Amino acid sequence: MTSAIAAESSGISRGPRTRFTEVSSRIFEEYNRGPDVWSMFNPLVFPTAKNLGQGFMNWQPPSFVLEELKKDVGERTDVHHYSHPKGRPRLRKALSKYLSKSLRVPDVSKGDLFDQGQLPQLRSESDRLLDPETQVLVTAGANGGMYAALNAFLEPGDEVIVFEPFFDQYICEITYCGGKPVYVPLIPPSKPGGGNAGADEWKVDWSALDAALASGKVKAIIFNTPHNPIGKVFELEELQQLARRCVERDLLVVSDEVYDCLTFDGKEHIRIAALEGMWDRTVTVGSAGKSFAATGWRIGWVAGAEHLIKPTLVSHTRIVFTCNSAASEAAAAGLEYAIQSDFFDQQSKEYEARRTKLTNMLDKLGLPYTLPHGAYFIMADMSRLQIPEGFEFPKDVASKAKDFQLAWFVAKIADVVTIPTTAFVSDEHWHLYENFLRFAFCKDGGEIEEAAVRLEKLRPYLKK
Amino acid sequence: MTSAIAAESSGISRGPRTRFTEVSSRIFEEYNRGPDVWSMFNPLVFPTAKNLGQGFMNWQPPSFVLEELKKDVGERTDVHHYSHPKGRPRLRKALSKYLSKSLRVPDVSKGDLFDQGQLPQLRSESDRLLDPETQVLVTAGANGGMYAALNAFLEPGDEVIVFEPFFDQYICEITYCGGKPVYVPLIPPSKPGGGNAGADEWKVDWSALDAALASGKVKAIIFNTPHNPIGKVFELEELQQLARRCVERDLLVVSDEVYDCLTFDGKEHIRIAALEGMWDRTVTVGSAGKSFAATGWRIGWVAGAEHLIKPTLVSHTRIVFTCNSAASEAAAAGLEYAIQSDFFDQQSKEYEARRTKLTNMLDKLGLPYTLPHGAYFIMADMSRLQIPEGFEFPKDVASKAKDFQLAWFVAKIADVVTIPTTAFVSDEHWHLYENFLRFAFCKDGGEIEEAAVRLEKLRPYLKK
Repeated sequence: MTSAIAAESSGISRGPRTRFTEVSSRIFEEYNRGPDVWSMFNPLVFPTAKNLGQGFMNWQPPSFVLEELKKDVGERTDVHHYSHPKGRPRLRKALSKYLSKSLRVPDVSKGDLFDQGQLPQLRSESDRLLDPETQVLVTAGANGGMYAALNAFLEPGDEVIVFEPFFDQYICEITYCGGKPVYVPLIPPSKPGGGNAGADEWKVDWSALDAALASGKVKAIIFNTPHNPIGKVFELEELQQLARRCVERDLLVVSDEVYDCLTFDGKEHIRIAALEGMWDRTVTVGSAGKSFAATGWRIGWVAGAEHLIKPTLVSHTRIVFTCNSAASEAAAAGLEYAIQSDFFDQQSKEYEARRTKLTNMLDKLGLPYTLPHGAYFIMADMSRLQIPEGFEFPKDVASKAKDFQLAWFVAKIADVVTIPTTAFVSDEHWHLYENFLRFAFCKDGGEIEEAAVRLEKLRPYLKK
Repeated sequence: MTSAIAAESSGISRGPRTRFTEVSSRIFEEYNRGPDVWSMFNPLVFPTAKNLGQGFMNWQPPSFVLEELKKDVGERTDVHHYSHPKGRPRLRKALSKYLSKSLRVPDVSKGDLFDQGQLPQLRSESDRLLDPETQVLVTAGANGGMYAALNAFLEPGDEVIVFEPFFDQYICEITYCGGKPVYVPLIPPSKPGGGNAGADEWKVDWSALDAALASGKVKAIIFNTPHNPIGKVFELEELQQLARRCVERDLLVVSDEVYDCLTFDGKEHIRIAALEGMWDRTVTVGSAGKSFAATGWRIGWVAGAEHLIKPTLVSHTRIVFTCNSAASEAAAAGLEYAIQSDFFDQQSKEYEARRTKLTNMLDKLGLPYTLPHGAYFIMADMSRLQIPEGFEFPKDVASKAKDFQLAWFVAKIADVVTIPTTAFVSDEHWHLYENFLRFAFCKDGGEIEEAAVRLEKLRPYLKK
């Protein structure tokens, strides 16, 4: 007699587990999808691996930030207690200074003018500052900010356009609010002979976008430039094409610009909110973690017109109330320094040197790649890698697209962790991306060089 | 001709503002309610006031925590970068040790047994530890944890019981998930002559609870002990009454126990999850901010059965991804120290001394109050305070219950900020609580004494 039956027959009950083993419909799909890419390609799974997978730096924040943080934590009381839900005034002021020039803040008394039927132009530069009280909000990371914004505006059933490959968090940010993601691919360049490409050769599938918009149910677009994982820095003409559609269809844009301070090769990051017609409909998102090598602070921000930020504040306040105070002050110190120095330029140069280490490694192996113009990832085309027949994969890896198996094979053979691109892609578009692995180059101290040595173990498996 | 008309007639358009000035239905009510209590009774509004309003301490975290934090921030790299979404292993281990004894973790292989038809008993103490991998989760404050848990289980239309007065964040945690709060009052003791009461004299309105449960739509109860603002530490018999109903109706309990380490007068905090039948249905919530005078860290936690914590992790991961790393390590250091010392007892004694300062003040003024047995708030009965006719209030204050006007009057006349209780009450039950103001006694350095001096200015307005 099992103990369950024993319990029942004796009149003793178990606490019923039935109802609360079932999750809500909004997390159902994700909950049942099994381990996500971050759990599979993880230091716990590959403890000795060189980790070129997850995008965090293996160095400390810059010293001008660290000094402030140490001093504050030791000497002050206020940095250990609640900040205003909007964020600490010092950080909001620094954000206003940092963002205003590139947002080209319009004179709202004149409205956000544009010529109907024309492509929206980049607004003239202005000296107007974002109002730190109403147009800037400090959030629990960029994630927390995007979620708060979508929560403030999405109704159940609203469709939201997401470009592929996407940062995976976008999807739940939509679905937890009852929204429905609609996928539009960025098309990889087709290179005869498999040569290298520039990130600018990846193109928006405009006809797919127009087809998606035709449903009439699209309320918002999640946009991302500089783009993770492609490294594409969207150019003015592309932003204009997108802006025109947003204006015509009255769409909200949540623009993930967390790599705004990190561009190469003279590419300029243009904020889509700086285009005519876009100020009134764009929530611009940024991150202290990406800007100051501090991904563990969980400090991000959103900026935009008051009618967008105020509802986002309501939502943010009630979800997390406010953010870590000491890290907020440190982020303010960082921005204040960066504004009056060439810190971000220097930092980009350091990343460019890391990028070169990684491209040298790929060149040496003869693996083609997309050269990124922003962010800190490289998409390598692994088509040449041939996995021997009979190589065994865990069930959760075997059931995914080819790139999951490529990444697993690379990790097993070379002890180098990368991330398969289809983790950032809808099932229907796996075929477009399943040869690409994402390599992160936010790594110092010989990590990339050591990874290069280890990846030599792949050579026997590379098709000529 | 206005510029809008000029723009229209010239073929130049404004970016349409129509659609995104409308917020989602889930934040609609809150967005349109006007300024909340925290914005009205705020240092920005009353800059010179003694603030006995918001519940944060005016001192630093304890030195054993601060030393760790300073050292980590200066010397380590990992505390500046992502933690695992579950939380840092060291903190989860410390939480397992701290929580296990009072949760009386059951042997899950035997299920959570209880006698049907009997009142659920407190389980026997056990040496079993919460599994730090599956039964504990570090969250973005207690708020973020409660929201993640409700997000994981609530479907649109589900009803959630909330006892009044409530911590105001509960309401949006429910409504943002599409749920519907249903209010059940805690009834204040009626004192002939308006004498003092003990917090244990506030009673659950069981018949109102049973009436609410009769809808058949209730899925969850948000419970809070020790209770903010009453200071009630629920006793075993009350917990049994509640647990019986939860088992009978298969309800989820989200139990806010952020003041678990802060009880007085020999009252013992009993976790409702430690009662028979409750393990399988209770998410227990705690807070580093309350435990270690660090409300600005935004580190909280949830604990419970794996089938409750795993969905909460899915939700938490996708909402904020993870929490501040350095503050998590500091919280771990704090718990490790507290477990092997009498820190929490000593801390409670210090709070008890502050409580005495505040009750002395109220005694001197002849204002009756509820003596709290936990947390750090006192409910003072201000029935005797007579606001002179013609005294003017801002519109947002005048439109609220009487206690908003009492709190405004106290702040204006005495320059002492308190919080009106009906901010934590549904409109239909204002009448039960509108004579009570909440005074916080988490204040040091003469704040309470100085407030006592200032409150003497109320004496001319106190009815004999």
